Amino acid sequence: MDTAADVHSPLTEDELRRLDAYWRAANYLTVGQIYLLDNPLLREPLTPEHIKPRLLGHWGTSPGLNLLYAHLNRVIVSRDLNAMFVTGPGHGGPAIVANTWLEGTWSERYHGVGRDEAGMARLFRQFSFPGGIPSHVAAEVPGSIHEGGELGYALSHAYGAAFDHPDLLVACVIGDGEAETGPLAGSWLSNVFLNPARDGAVLPILHLNGYKIASPTVLARIPEQDLLDLLHGYGYQPYVVAGDDPARVHQTLAATLDRALDEIATIQRRARSGGDVERPRWPMIILRTPKGWTGPREVDGVPVENTYRSHQVPLAEVRSNPTHLAELEKWLRSYHPEDLFDATGAPVAELVAMPPKGDRRMSANPVTNGGIVLRDLALPDFREYAVDVPEPGRPMAGAAGALGPWIRDVIAANPETFRLFGPDEIASNRLGAAFEVTDRAWLADTVPGDDHLSPDGRVMEVLSEHLCQGWLEGYLLTGRHGVFTSYEAFIHIVDSMVNQHAKWLKVTRGIPWRQPLASLNYLLSSHVWRQDHNGFSHQDPGFIDHVVNKKAEVVRVYLPPDANTLLSTMDHCLRSRHYINVVVAGKQPAPNWLTMPEAIQHTRRGLGIWEWASSDEGSEPDVVLACCGDVPTLEALAAADLLRRHLPDLKVRLVNVVDLMRLQPPSEHPHGLSDKEFDTIFTADRPVIFAYHGYPWLIHRLTYRRTNHDNLHVRGYKEEGTTTTPFDMVMLNDLDRFHLVIDVIDRVPGLAARAAHLRQQMVDTRQACRDYTREHGEDDPRVAEWRWIRETEPGLRSGL
Amino acid sequence: MDTAADVHSPLTEDELRRLDAYWRAANYLTVGQIYLLDNPLLREPLTPEHIKPRLLGHWGTSPGLNLLYAHLNRVIVSRDLNAMFVTGPGHGGPAIVANTWLEGTWSERYHGVGRDEAGMARLFRQFSFPGGIPSHVAAEVPGSIHEGGELGYALSHAYGAAFDHPDLLVACVIGDGEAETGPLAGSWLSNVFLNPARDGAVLPILHLNGYKIASPTVLARIPEQDLLDLLHGYGYQPYVVAGDDPARVHQTLAATLDRALDEIATIQRRARSGGDVERPRWPMIILRTPKGWTGPREVDGVPVENTYRSHQVPLAEVRSNPTHLAELEKWLRSYHPEDLFDATGAPVAELVAMPPKGDRRMSANPVTNGGIVLRDLALPDFREYAVDVPEPGRPMAGAAGALGPWIRDVIAANPETFRLFGPDEIASNRLGAAFEVTDRAWLADTVPGDDHLSPDGRVMEVLSEHLCQGWLEGYLLTGRHGVFTSYEAFIHIVDSMVNQHAKWLKVTRGIPWRQPLASLNYLLSSHVWRQDHNGFSHQDPGFIDHVVNKKAEVVRVYLPPDANTLLSTMDHCLRSRHYINVVVAGKQPAPNWLTMPEAIQHTRRGLGIWEWASSDEGSEPDVVLACCGDVPTLEALAAADLLRRHLPDLKVRLVNVVDLMRLQPPSEHPHGLSDKEFDTIFTADRPVIFAYHGYPWLIHRLTYRRTNHDNLHVRGYKEEGTTTTPFDMVMLNDLDRFHLVIDVIDRVPGLAARAAHLRQQMVDTRQACRDYTREHGEDDPRVAEWRWIRETEPGLRSGL
Repeated sequence: MDTAADVHSPLTEDELRRLDAYWRAANYLTVGQIYLLDNPLLREPLTPEHIKPRLLGHWGTSPGLNLLYAHLNRVIVSRDLNAMFVTGPGHGGPAIVANTWLEGTWSERYHGVGRDEAGMARLFRQFSFPGGIPSHVAAEVPGSIHEGGELGYALSHAYGAAFDHPDLLVACVIGDGEAETGPLAGSWLSNVFLNPARDGAVLPILHLNGYKIASPTVLARIPEQDLLDLLHGYGYQPYVVAGDDPARVHQTLAATLDRALDEIATIQRRARSGGDVERPRWPMIILRTPKGWTGPREVDGVPVENTYRSHQVPLAEVRSNPTHLAELEKWLRSYHPEDLFDATGAPVAELVAMPPKGDRRMSANPVTNGGIVLRDLALPDFREYAVDVPEPGRPMAGAAGALGPWIRDVIAANPETFRLFGPDEIASNRLGAAFEVTDRAWLADTVPGDDHLSPDGRVMEVLSEHLCQGWLEGYLLTGRHGVFTSYEAFIHIVDSMVNQHAKWLKVTRGIPWRQPLASLNYLLSSHVWRQDHNGFSHQDPGFIDHVVNKKAEVVRVYLPPDANTLLSTMDHCLRSRHYINVVVAGKQPAPNWLTMPEAIQHTRRGLGIWEWASSDEGSEPDVVLACCGDVPTLEALAAADLLRRHLPDLKVRLVNVVDLMRLQPPSEHPHGLSDKEFDTIFTADRPVIFAYHGYPWLIHRLTYRRTNHDNLHVRGYKEEGTTTTPFDMVMLNDLDRFHLVIDVIDRVPGLAARAAHLRQQMVDTRQACRDYTREHGEDDPRVAEWRWIRETEPGLRSGL
Repeated sequence: MDTAADVHSPLTEDELRRLDAYWRAANYLTVGQIYLLDNPLLREPLTPEHIKPRLLGHWGTSPGLNLLYAHLNRVIVSRDLNAMFVTGPGHGGPAIVANTWLEGTWSERYHGVGRDEAGMARLFRQFSFPGGIPSHVAAEVPGSIHEGGELGYALSHAYGAAFDHPDLLVACVIGDGEAETGPLAGSWLSNVFLNPARDGAVLPILHLNGYKIASPTVLARIPEQDLLDLLHGYGYQPYVVAGDDPARVHQTLAATLDRALDEIATIQRRARSGGDVERPRWPMIILRTPKGWTGPREVDGVPVENTYRSHQVPLAEVRSNPTHLAELEKWLRSYHPEDLFDATGAPVAELVAMPPKGDRRMSANPVTNGGIVLRDLALPDFREYAVDVPEPGRPMAGAAGALGPWIRDVIAANPETFRLFGPDEIASNRLGAAFEVTDRAWLADTVPGDDHLSPDGRVMEVLSEHLCQGWLEGYLLTGRHGVFTSYEAFIHIVDSMVNQHAKWLKVTRGIPWRQPLASLNYLLSSHVWRQDHNGFSHQDPGFIDHVVNKKAEVVRVYLPPDANTLLSTMDHCLRSRHYINVVVAGKQPAPNWLTMPEAIQHTRRGLGIWEWASSDEGSEPDVVLACCGDVPTLEALAAADLLRRHLPDLKVRLVNVVDLMRLQPPSEHPHGLSDKEFDTIFTADRPVIFAYHGYPWLIHRLTYRRTNHDNLHVRGYKEEGTTTTPFDMVMLNDLDRFHLVIDVIDRVPGLAARAAHLRQQMVDTRQACRDYTREHGEDDPRVAEWRWIRETEPGLRSGL
């Protein structure tokens, strides 16, 4: 027997030796990926021809990742844990790739890259090589749910993965660079929303290797007691593991991991034994080891190990500088590959035996390939939640409010696989019906009078769009469903996160073993046109433009004009897979237009002619009034009504667009209308006045190749706003019904002379509306009605 | 004399009485703004006609803001402080407006709104009223540099204001809602970058009123010791002021403010007395008072004060519900307006005497209207930093690297008014020359071997785009200059902050007393085409698209094709005012095209025909090859070279665009070319092949109204990327020279048949390039040269 372990040195000498060997193997494979084209086992002396022409990759963080991975494997085996690994320092791609190869997962996913010498050579060559794999912990890496190229989201992803996975342990490595970002700093308090009875555990591991690209990191250079206070303040029990002597660090890390996992087990046992669930003090680890540990100490007389210079490629001129080449060979041989790999190039049996087996491997945990554990939602029949629409324009009902009961029943029917996320705006966004069946998740203190707070809540509210997005991404990536509801203007806060998720979706479409995820669904119901009360800072419809820049195959944008189309749209979104669905629909009381059967048909088509609001009666119209979005639809319908009554022989066709992507050519987007269909609807040569929800040029960008584009005239938000009334907002941007009538008069050939009087009336009526608003502080109540002019004909005649 | 003050109760009874009266006056004025159309002094009983028809505004945070403002006024007077106020809870607009009116500043800025009854009536009416002022602490509010509609940036703005303002005290109120955001959480450690000798002081005041819109706040519900640990961990000395008894809170807050300001004075004295500057433990205040304090305790039997229900308008039905109306009157009268305002409606003399005078008023501090203290930069003559360009294509030199020495000398010449900001990428972005004259600002620990860290550094590096942006905004808004350099992909992280700054710039153009600021300058030199090594996550050119959605009068976008045009462009940007300038230029070695005189002329024109690269010799060309961005320019020039030699009779015109906004019609952007000029350059009917840096549809969106738009064919980034080589990146997106030649062949009428052989050669050459890259792991070295084919004619002939 080996030396007995104690609590501070729990590893026997043999365990220590094997752990260290495993770590060395991973480090060797990491360095090999960065440098070697050939001669993977150093069977012959290194020559420049064995070296890659472009040296790409990040060594600095890798030895720390390899250390943690090896130690986590130990406890997964000893405790039979269901664990996964979130690599915050995503640049450490070669480290995680090395580990998945050692575990065998890489070879299972990529059959050409076996655990033998030829496979190792391919493993090395493919890394950061054209036609190979990216340098980061990308979607290609088994076990990853987190690319890590853009920093800040490791911890929120980890918490998202842990929600509703009670048996899961999510080990989350946070680089000390990433820890400087706002989104990461804001993620620590996720523990206020994690229920130890219902959810899994997150073990944050703050890796202080001390340096970013060129500077030290802040958290590595504040007093250690401050750092401990900070993390204690965030509700954790931090344990420090520090050093640069591998043997000591192995023992301390092993002891600390054991202690942390014991505490997690105790926390979960206590929480699951009945009684009140309280917010525990979860353990976390601070690992302080040198950047580029075990790499070259110095290069050309300059310190490299434990400095920022080891961030990427410590020896940069290996092909041209014989000293560098010799240093590299020395470095590689320092791991003793001859002890780690057998004659075939496979890891020696002892190493193969060490990691967990099958699905217990972190690289093979099924939840990290969320699509394979994803189950369809049980969706209540949305048709049963229909708003009764006896005639177009009746009743007045907010779309989001009508959706609420259906969302409530989705939550109730899927008690383990669906959550609703939002920055403290679920009730404000009129989805309060959710609180009839659930609460806000909350484990901090409560006081009498608190509204729907509970550890069991399935509504995730925190005043951080970053956290909502990060949690939801983590939740989706591990095989569940959700909806994020937010203000349209402030969803730009997560623009960059959306980019990264869109890229993940795009890339994984090309990775055969990755299965489709549930879509990322946005419901933006506090939109630009109804932020009149909050003012200019709250007015921005540009998120649609941002999303539309992503690959067509992963983005969908819907602007349902009323409640029933919203219900039909959301049902579609929650059934869809692997998309980013952006749904913009209002929360304020508004007219409804379509019965549920009409809404279903309209949503399926994505756009269509509303015959009942048109006067072209199937013939070629004089003008097309198109609209997209709830407020523009109301204004366009009101304009059509005005035109019908004041210019009864003018043939107006009203077209409503729900699915914005229908406007693009089919070559640009799978939802795109054929040119023939487009011309049939929008005509080949008649003026089209298009009332659009967002920035008007987006419509041009989507339609510039269409036959009739030169006749297209778009109104939308042109960045004019302030704190005012809803109708004043549309007037400020020339999107109002009266201006649309003016646009029609100005655009239909020959109409200007004939309709000069009406045109002047429209100008006067706009002024009258403006005057009314300035005097009374509210809109003329008649503008809430699309047919308000009909009842006030004399008012119109006199210019109001 | 009054009762003597002690250290815990420093206010005499008279001081206490007066402070409380001031607070009551501000609270009264706040409630008046939210509710009253008329009868501002309650000279008659309130009737529904006195009430605004739409009740908009946020009461909950306002009493706390008023309390802090009044107490800060006390210490400003007693200590003759130079202070300003950053209102994190920007929703508390009526509170800050009330204070500026009490100070007289509002009436000085807005002459119709005097300190009398009529003025008070106007003050009340204008708030959140059509034609009036926004509900937030918007740009219209004197003393504000921070709108606060979007939460998260108060503290970074405060630190930005304090940099290089040694005498300034920035009191920064942070709402406990805002404190949940990532960007705010990431801002606390700004104290690592604040030099107590050179910079001013920031006094963070975390206002725990306990609730957001609908939920409690996290920081109000974690154990108080955790909260203290947290803030101590962030390097502060936190002091708690808590209570709901105004007299006690007044005394405690006064004592605490005195203590904090004493400590700040001591810190600054010590730092400024010579010797080493160390990172001090700055004081901060936690103010725990009820949300909606002094408002209605209950409404309709439901608790309101000290709950989330006081967030906005506590009494919502005042016009229709007589009980609510009576409650409002009782509430207003509880402040005893008859004691606070005299017969004319002016504040009583005692109140008028209390706040600071002139520029010492926080609402009148000149730095809060940065344009009035802004001085022009001393700019070294950029022409002296020119790269010598003996012929187009020589020498190879990175544009950013050539800019470095000029930036260095800008820093040196402006030691108090210019800083460089970036997320740990200044050296990586090739601006390392800056470190010849300055360091990175840093007050945390240092160790031997650290690279250019110093308390006096003028380079602000932290791995947080949010912090860089927030600091820079605060710095600009208080009258200084700066440049933010970052990765093109990750600048999306601050999309939403850019929105808010653009809105500020737009709105302040219409506020006569606001003076123009220095522009917000971005230099994005790690751009999409040279993120081949970092991979897909680092590839996104969409920030341009995002910015272009903002008001044309505030945005400018430049894509200089080489070093001399970059120098000329940056000189222009640093002289400009009140814009957002986005400059995209590479950092990698690349060919240079223009001599400095040519570059200056080209930059001034914004776009132009490059005769030396064209073969149309002034006649009407067969095809226009347009390009914008450094990599597309190289590819277009190489394509033109290929065409000139292989199709010598084809007349090719090469057009380069530096100023992207020149493409728009002048009706859309002040830089827009007239249609006539546009047609002269791009022709009215010839094919235009446009090689563009970013998403190709942006070019269509800018040019869809141009005569020749139907002939425009744009190549750009179409979201195809991975870790590969630079030339493989352009090939993946069909932007490469060979594909541009194919595009020309396919688009010029009649050319397809004549040039079939060349077209096939181009197809073969692309494949050969791809094969070379896959085999060798690097680009064929000849693709770095724009005329590489010339020397390898036989290679081309044989399809390489």
